[in-house]
Formats: sequence, structure tokens, C-alpha cells
Amino acid sequence: MITVSDFVFSFSPDHPPAARALPGEVVRFVTQDCFCGQVTGESVLTTEIDMTRLNPATGPVFVEGAEPGDALFADILSIDIADRGYLCTLPDYGPLGGWSELRTREVDARGGVLRFNDLVFPARPMVGVIGTAPSEGSVSCENPGAHGGNMDCKLVEAGARTFFPVRTSGALFQLGDLHASMGDGEIGGSGVETAGSVLVRLGLLKDFPLDWPLVESRGMIHAVASGPEFVDTQREAARQMQRLITAAWGWDDTDAALYLAARGDSAICQSCKPSDSDIVLRVGVPLEPSMPRLVPTTR
Amino acid sequence: MITVSDFVFSFSPDHPPAARALPGEVVRFVTQDCFCGQVTGESVLTTEIDMTRLNPATGPVFVEGAEPGDALFADILSIDIADRGYLCTLPDYGPLGGWSELRTREVDARGGVLRFNDLVFPARPMVGVIGTAPSEGSVSCENPGAHGGNMDCKLVEAGARTFFPVRTSGALFQLGDLHASMGDGEIGGSGVETAGSVLVRLGLLKDFPLDWPLVESRGMIHAVASGPEFVDTQREAARQMQRLITAAWGWDDTDAALYLAARGDSAICQSCKPSDSDIVLRVGVPLEPSMPRLVPTTR
Repeated sequence: MITVSDFVFSFSPDHPPAARALPGEVVRFVTQDCFCGQVTGESVLTTEIDMTRLNPATGPVFVEGAEPGDALFADILSIDIADRGYLCTLPDYGPLGGWSELRTREVDARGGVLRFNDLVFPARPMVGVIGTAPSEGSVSCENPGAHGGNMDCKLVEAGARTFFPVRTSGALFQLGDLHASMGDGEIGGSGVETAGSVLVRLGLLKDFPLDWPLVESRGMIHAVASGPEFVDTQREAARQMQRLITAAWGWDDTDAALYLAARGDSAICQSCKPSDSDIVLRVGVPLEPSMPRLVPTTR
Repeated sequence: MITVSDFVFSFSPDHPPAARALPGEVVRFVTQDCFCGQVTGESVLTTEIDMTRLNPATGPVFVEGAEPGDALFADILSIDIADRGYLCTLPDYGPLGGWSELRTREVDARGGVLRFNDLVFPARPMVGVIGTAPSEGSVSCENPGAHGGNMDCKLVEAGARTFFPVRTSGALFQLGDLHASMGDGEIGGSGVETAGSVLVRLGLLKDFPLDWPLVESRGMIHAVASGPEFVDTQREAARQMQRLITAAWGWDDTDAALYLAARGDSAICQSCKPSDSDIVLRVGVPLEPSMPRLVPTTR
């Protein structure tokens, strides 16, 4: 098994690989928390840290044989989180920004449960930042996009299979930004932010171009799209699913749309508006057992 | 048991009650489908029906003792749907409006499963239109609002408990617009639209003012807000939950916001943009078993 602990603050085809892996190989990603360890206690507020060092992603890993037009898939085998996490408000961030103050809370995360005030609830570890390099240039790890990035999709948890477009040779896959728990929408701007490590099995689907990442989790498969505005973002995610359905099931666009209305779920991954952060939405359908898979991983 | 089958096309304090019920009483609502029965087969498109006769709600029921400032609660005990439903596109409606044609499909709904093309999937009956009268004027049953109305929240299913603000004497509760199945977002503009009947136990929570309806379902409680725009709507729903948490648990606004970021889910009920329909969102948290209930129904 390959272990990677180098990290970067952007997705880019120009990053030298931290490791090289064959399709089918398992890689262990040792990750920093989203603050790069700068928040060390409740006295440290998010206004007091270096905001150029946020959301580090561990990697990138060069996947042998991956070429533009392929899809990379990454099975999240397990997620180990640190013994504590930090839950922080950020200035004027999220729908409750006007009704909350700057505050950092340390959350005990030992034993699979989280403790916050007099409340104890199960940890639900997930990966916030995950994806492949864009074809050119550089995208900050703080942003989501067609390559994945800061998707903050809570379904990216142990047991999930994720798919990303390959836009450069080797895909250059990387991940980070673990949350011990985060609600859909991450409406406060942070989840319970932790360091940790993630076991991932990488796979390659040759010649399967994608416009947006996909997440298969809890019996459903979702397209995850992002953008500055709700309506266009929802259209992108819905259109990706419509295309997958027509291709896999031989239905026309209208029947696919009707099916999505009846059975598809449109949901929120990240929505820290009214800040200028991009919104991340997903549109998903159940893995219908009687129908061909929307994304076959063997063929 | 009271049975009601009269229907209206708006929520208004001016509607004469179709029945009067005591808190605790079970009422059977016999409902029309959202098209008022005008769609009778696949040859009938949504452009060919009388659009002033949409989304009828059965009722209203006058609940004895309900006064402004109270909350009405309605437990959905069971939902029976008709043997068939209709799934329709509407002109330029929903995120796939540009990639679908006008079409009506009849869906067989017998035996608890739905049949669409070569696909068979379980029916998941839910109530689209539900709520109480506003304090004055009239709100079309096509619209959502602070009174409920066309919330299209798929969690309003058998087993759910719903709460609505009482804004006029007797509350004037009514419901309709059953769907045999609808995905979160109802992104095509219709679910599988059916007639049917709904058994509801009504309850009254004296002196518990609400800004927005609440839905308790599947182990969570959600505030359901609506409006023309994503950001403001999400703020309304999040703020309602923040207020419930601070009142019930004695936390301050900031800890409530941090908790919502870590554990609350922001989700979509209805989103047929880019049409001018209002968006309906929910923000919900688990029913934490170790903590006081956010809305006590006995006290």
C-alpha cells in the first residue's frame, strides 16, 4: 500500500506527483485539517489565522494509464479521524452569519462519538476536498468545480464510490478536509474539522467522459455540480444525470426528466451564502436494481 | 371519524369550514389529484387543461380552540393513493425544461409499486399541499408560504408529524395534492400525481407561535421555508431552527449555529426554477434522544 502525506493548496496539472499508483491499488492519504493545524484551541478564531493556508489536499497521486476522457473512480474504504476537531464560525459566512458571533469550539471526537455542550452524537466522518486536476491552470482547494475540489458532499464517506473526470495524464487525484460531522449545506462554513487518514482504492474507467463528479453512496448515485448561483448549478447536475440515464437505459430526454421528477433527489452539499462562495448541489437517483448501472465500472 | 371531501383552491380565513374537529380527533381527507381530474390519459398535455383549477385542497377543517399564536399539529397516519397517477412536464418548467418536451405519462400505481417504462419501484406516497389559513386575504393552493400550502415536502408522508402556525380562529387546516412518488426538488414540476385519501390526527399546541411550518419525519425535525430566492429562503429556515434550539436547549445563538453546521441538514423540497415558482427549502436536525424535544406536544 502506498502512503501519501505531502499536500498542496490547489488542483493543477503542474503539481509534481507525490506518488504513482496502478488502477486497483489502495492508497493511504494522511491529511491535515482544513486549517492546516493553525487552530489549536478555542482561543484561536478564524480571523487570526493565515487564510492562504486553508483546505490542504494530500497528493496528488498519478494514476498510471489515466488519460483525458477517462473517468477515475475512487472507493472510500475507511476514514480515520483525529481525537478532536474544531467547529468555527467565519465572519459573515452562511445563512446564520447575522445571528452568530465569531467563535471556535473544540469537539471531543474519541470513541466514534462527538461531544458538544451536553450533547453526544455519532461521528460521521466524510471527505470535504477530493478530485482530479483540471486540464490547465490551477484551482484553489477552497473552491469546488467540474474537477471536484471543495465539494463538501457529506456522502463522500466510508463505503462511497466517487467518480471524477480525468483532464490530464495520470488524473492527479488528491483529497483532504475531513469532517467528523457536517450537515448537508455546511451552513456555518465549517464542519467539525479534523486531521486524519483515508484509505482509497483507485480505479480507472477508460473513455467515459464526465462533465461533473459523481458520488455513489447509500444506495443512490448523484451528480455533484457547483457554481455561483442556485438555478444554473441545479441545471448542470440535473443535466448530467439526464445524460447518464438516456445513455444507460435508452430512454429519451423527456422520459429521463419525468423519471428524475418522480424519483430523483435534488439536494444541497454546500451553501454558505450570502458569502460569495460557490454553491454545491447534487441530483441523484436510486441504484435501480432491475436496470443497467448508470456508470458501469467493468465492461 | 370525520370525513371531508369538499375542496378549495386557496388558503383563506374566509372559507367556510367543511367540518369542525376537536384536538385529538382523526379526520379522513378525500383528495382530488393536482389537476382536479382533468388529466385523464397520456393524450392530455398540461397545456390543454384549465390552469385555474390546479392543486385543490380538501377542507378546511375548523379545529376547536385553535387561536392565533398557537401551533396546530397534524399527524399523517396513512395515505391511500389511487390505482394510477400522471407524470407530466410543464412548459419551460424546472431545470430540465430546456431538454424535455411536453409529455404526459400514466403510471400504474397498484400494489404499492409504480411502473414506468421497464422500471418498477416502490410507491412513496406524500402530501404536496398542506397547511392552515393565513391571517387575512387568500393564498392560492399553488403557492407555498409561512402557512404551509404547496410545500411539496416529500417528508410529509405516513408517520410524519407536521406543525403549522395558527393565524386565524379554528386554524382552518386543509390538504391535497398527493404524489405517489416525488423526488426532493420535484425538478420536473410534477410528481406522480394522484387522487386518494389521507388519515390525519389533529392536535393543538397552545401558545407556541411559529414563523414557518415544521415537519418531523424519519428521526429528524425540519423547518420548511419558502420564497422567490435561494439565499433568503435558506436564512429563514435556518433561523427558525436556531430559535427552536436556543429556546429548548438554553444555548446561545452561536452555539446553535455551530451545531446546525455540524449536524443540521439544509435540503430542497421544491425547486422548479428557472420558472418563477417559489423555492421551498428545509433545514432540519436529528431528534437528539438525550435532549429536550424542540417542539413538545405535551407540557
